[in-house]
Amino acid sequence: MYRSHDCGSLRASDINTEVTLAGWVQKSRDKGFMVWVDLRDRYGITQLIFDEERTDKKILEQAQNLGREFVIQVKGTVIERESKNDNMATGDIEILVKELNVLSESKTPPFTIEDKTDGGEELRMKYRYLDIRRNPVRENLIFRSKVAMEVRNFLAGKDFVEVETPVLIKSTPEGARDFVVPSRMNEGQFYALPQSPQTFKQLLMIGGMDKYFQIVKCFRDEDLRADRQPEFTQIDCEMSFVEQEDVLNIFEEMTRHLLKKVKNVEVAEFPRMTYNEAMEKYGNDKPDIRFGMEFGDLSAFAKARDFKIFNEAEIVVGIAVPGAGSYSRKEIDALVDWVKRPQVGALGMVYVKCNDDGSFKSSVDKFYNQDDLAKWAETTGAKPGDLICVLSGPAHKTRAQLSALRMELAERLDLRKADQFAPLWVVDFPLLEWDEESNRYHAMHHPFTSPKPEDIDKLSTDPGNVRANAYDLVLNGNEIGGGSVRIFDKKLQALMFEHLGFTEEEARAQFGFLMDAFEYGAPPHAGLAFGFDRLVAILGGQETIRDFIAFPKNNNGRDVMIDAPSKIDDVQLKELSLKVTV
Amino acid sequence: MYRSHDCGSLRASDINTEVTLAGWVQKSRDKGFMVWVDLRDRYGITQLIFDEERTDKKILEQAQNLGREFVIQVKGTVIERESKNDNMATGDIEILVKELNVLSESKTPPFTIEDKTDGGEELRMKYRYLDIRRNPVRENLIFRSKVAMEVRNFLAGKDFVEVETPVLIKSTPEGARDFVVPSRMNEGQFYALPQSPQTFKQLLMIGGMDKYFQIVKCFRDEDLRADRQPEFTQIDCEMSFVEQEDVLNIFEEMTRHLLKKVKNVEVAEFPRMTYNEAMEKYGNDKPDIRFGMEFGDLSAFAKARDFKIFNEAEIVVGIAVPGAGSYSRKEIDALVDWVKRPQVGALGMVYVKCNDDGSFKSSVDKFYNQDDLAKWAETTGAKPGDLICVLSGPAHKTRAQLSALRMELAERLDLRKADQFAPLWVVDFPLLEWDEESNRYHAMHHPFTSPKPEDIDKLSTDPGNVRANAYDLVLNGNEIGGGSVRIFDKKLQALMFEHLGFTEEEARAQFGFLMDAFEYGAPPHAGLAFGFDRLVAILGGQETIRDFIAFPKNNNGRDVMIDAPSKIDDVQLKELSLKVTV
Repeated sequence: MYRSHDCGSLRASDINTEVTLAGWVQKSRDKGFMVWVDLRDRYGITQLIFDEERTDKKILEQAQNLGREFVIQVKGTVIERESKNDNMATGDIEILVKELNVLSESKTPPFTIEDKTDGGEELRMKYRYLDIRRNPVRENLIFRSKVAMEVRNFLAGKDFVEVETPVLIKSTPEGARDFVVPSRMNEGQFYALPQSPQTFKQLLMIGGMDKYFQIVKCFRDEDLRADRQPEFTQIDCEMSFVEQEDVLNIFEEMTRHLLKKVKNVEVAEFPRMTYNEAMEKYGNDKPDIRFGMEFGDLSAFAKARDFKIFNEAEIVVGIAVPGAGSYSRKEIDALVDWVKRPQVGALGMVYVKCNDDGSFKSSVDKFYNQDDLAKWAETTGAKPGDLICVLSGPAHKTRAQLSALRMELAERLDLRKADQFAPLWVVDFPLLEWDEESNRYHAMHHPFTSPKPEDIDKLSTDPGNVRANAYDLVLNGNEIGGGSVRIFDKKLQALMFEHLGFTEEEARAQFGFLMDAFEYGAPPHAGLAFGFDRLVAILGGQETIRDFIAFPKNNNGRDVMIDAPSKIDDVQLKELSLKVTV
Repeated sequence: MYRSHDCGSLRASDINTEVTLAGWVQKSRDKGFMVWVDLRDRYGITQLIFDEERTDKKILEQAQNLGREFVIQVKGTVIERESKNDNMATGDIEILVKELNVLSESKTPPFTIEDKTDGGEELRMKYRYLDIRRNPVRENLIFRSKVAMEVRNFLAGKDFVEVETPVLIKSTPEGARDFVVPSRMNEGQFYALPQSPQTFKQLLMIGGMDKYFQIVKCFRDEDLRADRQPEFTQIDCEMSFVEQEDVLNIFEEMTRHLLKKVKNVEVAEFPRMTYNEAMEKYGNDKPDIRFGMEFGDLSAFAKARDFKIFNEAEIVVGIAVPGAGSYSRKEIDALVDWVKRPQVGALGMVYVKCNDDGSFKSSVDKFYNQDDLAKWAETTGAKPGDLICVLSGPAHKTRAQLSALRMELAERLDLRKADQFAPLWVVDFPLLEWDEESNRYHAMHHPFTSPKPEDIDKLSTDPGNVRANAYDLVLNGNEIGGGSVRIFDKKLQALMFEHLGFTEEEARAQFGFLMDAFEYGAPPHAGLAFGFDRLVAILGGQETIRDFIAFPKNNNGRDVMIDAPSKIDDVQLKELSLKVTV
């Protein structure tokens, strides 16, 4: 061992102890006759002291030549510091160095290894191993490890068995694009990397495993939006002989356990909301309920006057922005510009200032009198001093636009507190969603999700309104988990494939093994998967998953540190019976 | 929830309780007026009873029509069994059924769902979800999950952080063949799947993570020998500021912890042996030391007589087989045939029977007298009643052959006890090994392994005899883990690449990021990786890893259940800029 103690552990009680420490030079101060060095490792920082009187001259000189990020080993005595530092755990002591051994030199790092660094995103990614030396990045990774342990301990305590499912599986065109892996031993054939272990966990239920979980890497070859990664981690779970209620209860308990264990936050019973309610109240199936600003549907009143834009709109809907009644004309114009940006796409915005004296001033005073506006205020819950923002148009689009505005304003008004946790179950998702591109219905979750039994009849008559036994767990406006009760009856599964536009042959080719399995006694089962990267980020009070991944890829799916992907040589291609066509 | 209790939990104390159970029909007995059904789930079996007197006639009829593996739900009362079954945890009670609900029917399974099944390997693989219903397979998977939890708890308790390293990385021709993944977004380029997270864990050490572990899937595109899988799981570990001794100590402690926790076996300090010693004593770098039969080098005595075969051999080496002195001529001939099989490849075998009266009878009595043979007996440790088997030829080959014979005889003599655990550290492995095919030295572990400092000079003069700070953990004749002290000096690393035949450009192209990282203060570090599949199998008292993997692949790398790999469609190929050439 190169050390007797780590750099975070020495205290006043260790004074006079002979110690050996090793670590990185965080910084040094050289007064000529005296040199101080901050020595850093994962556990903390300890101050080293070299001086003319007590230190061998050669060693003092050596100390004067240490650069940042050199790796050194020192032997010395723990002594009391003259000027103590209460901000450091080791601030009462320092090490009077007798021996100094440079283990590795370092070039000047391309950015500062400090809590706040001067390095930009790309540079930090290229030198990720240096970025990881910074406290915030390292703490995030340690935090992630801790959350994973708590998840495992909780689930193991509930009799869940962690089962590893295969990574080299079979390509299925349903869902997102698969990454594929050419097989050398089976020429011209490919494995696929799993988008989730969905079918395997269902097979484990058919196999009687009863309660399964796995913290597992999954893969999706998508055009990457900001903060999406081609490989991501899921907490994947499945249970047999359960109903939706049982799944919600156990994972609510798990989430509460995590909040308590890693954040010391106690949360009461999670509220539940149907998908339809979430869309009406928040225009969003993953609403952030840490703050209000619920939608008020103004259609009925707003359409009763001569304002053509509202009268021609499918819906008119508004939110009350607390305290924004005092916004200047300029500020309000900026808001209007914001909703008109192509990313949001509204055509305009109507506003109402709720004056402190109870009167209203709106951008549509020509059409609506004070009584009309009072109704708007009542419906949106606006108080004197608030600003009502109103959008109109087609229902779905308008709600999405108002939701974007609501989130933006909450951000600006600092209503999204990182240390506040507001979980929410959203239930009764639609089973199917219409896909414009392929001109047919797709499964909103996946083809194995069970419709609500009372809605099965609507599959042929009104497919868009069939509800599923599907649910999402939302935390602070982010979907952190989602799942469903599964179909376990082969006839219902066949019916689903039919409604999703699979021919019998296609269904057979892709999911034959699952349909076969249903022939041999499938138990009722249901499950859920958490997006682990996001869960950890949100528990950590942040929303950028990249900060919680040791070696993330950039938006082009590249690892800029190792420079992957890259070309492979012709021998390799030939062995795989492949030719590159670019 | 479909049940109030599972099928393993009801006891005499529950008599008169109303319960709901759900599970699979293990078997039923129909006496016409009375039907018994064994209901099975993961937790056990509970007997159900239906009878003319107490059961509704319709339900009795329903019960008479239940087939094996039907999934049912029953409601009823716990009653005392007339004939108790002490072999079952629930053997004191049975359920008098009042309601029966068939949840899923089942076709007759293709093999029996019993501890000993009539299903062959391929059939069980194809219907793996049915195989998993069998107790031994399910128990293996639960055991695996438990071992993983114990590993994690142990390492987390020692301040190791579990960090997930990426799966989509970069192809490196060194080592085994990589599986590659074409990148759609980076045309003509490929990711590779990791053969191990080796470089990433070293980067984590350079990043100051100090103690890292991960239970992680790795991939190797090899022609599969029996019991090799293209994807396998490693317990991967790395530590900073440590020396070999520290690594051996902590992982010895971990292994001892596992043996205690999952097998309740206490093991004393693990013996250590150099690679050279292991080769000389056992002809094998992973000797099974649960039994003796150590090699005796007879070269000196055996070559002193007129037996040409021995005189021309590089070595003459023998083992004493306990109690085999009574083997018949036929049995010995069979042994000779066994060593002459092409898989072993010996040209013949000399034997000496050690008679109970202290005399010897050998197949080479023409050349050797009783005194000669007494020396052989002394050197091999043979006692009266033993058989000495002697092979000769080139040192390396002959030792390998005798090792094979030793293991075979131990198997036949039942000396390899599944409940006995004999761990062993093998240390001081050679740094390099000669590769006939490429006519150059390869790294025996990998190119990042540190030579012993005192042997560095030999790199140019006597490369085959440079020893590495590399070690294997052997358990019962299987390598369960291996690792090394790593190079952390960029100059030494460059020297190693040179000796391994890399040009500077090649080294740069493949490992440039690691060599760059060495420029910024790399700490001394060392690590180890356990083969988790094998570790679990051996702790489970077995040697076939496939039995401890939920969904294994066959020897052609195929998953016969899901039928992967498979063809992918032309659209997918086109998107990947690929053409299949077969």
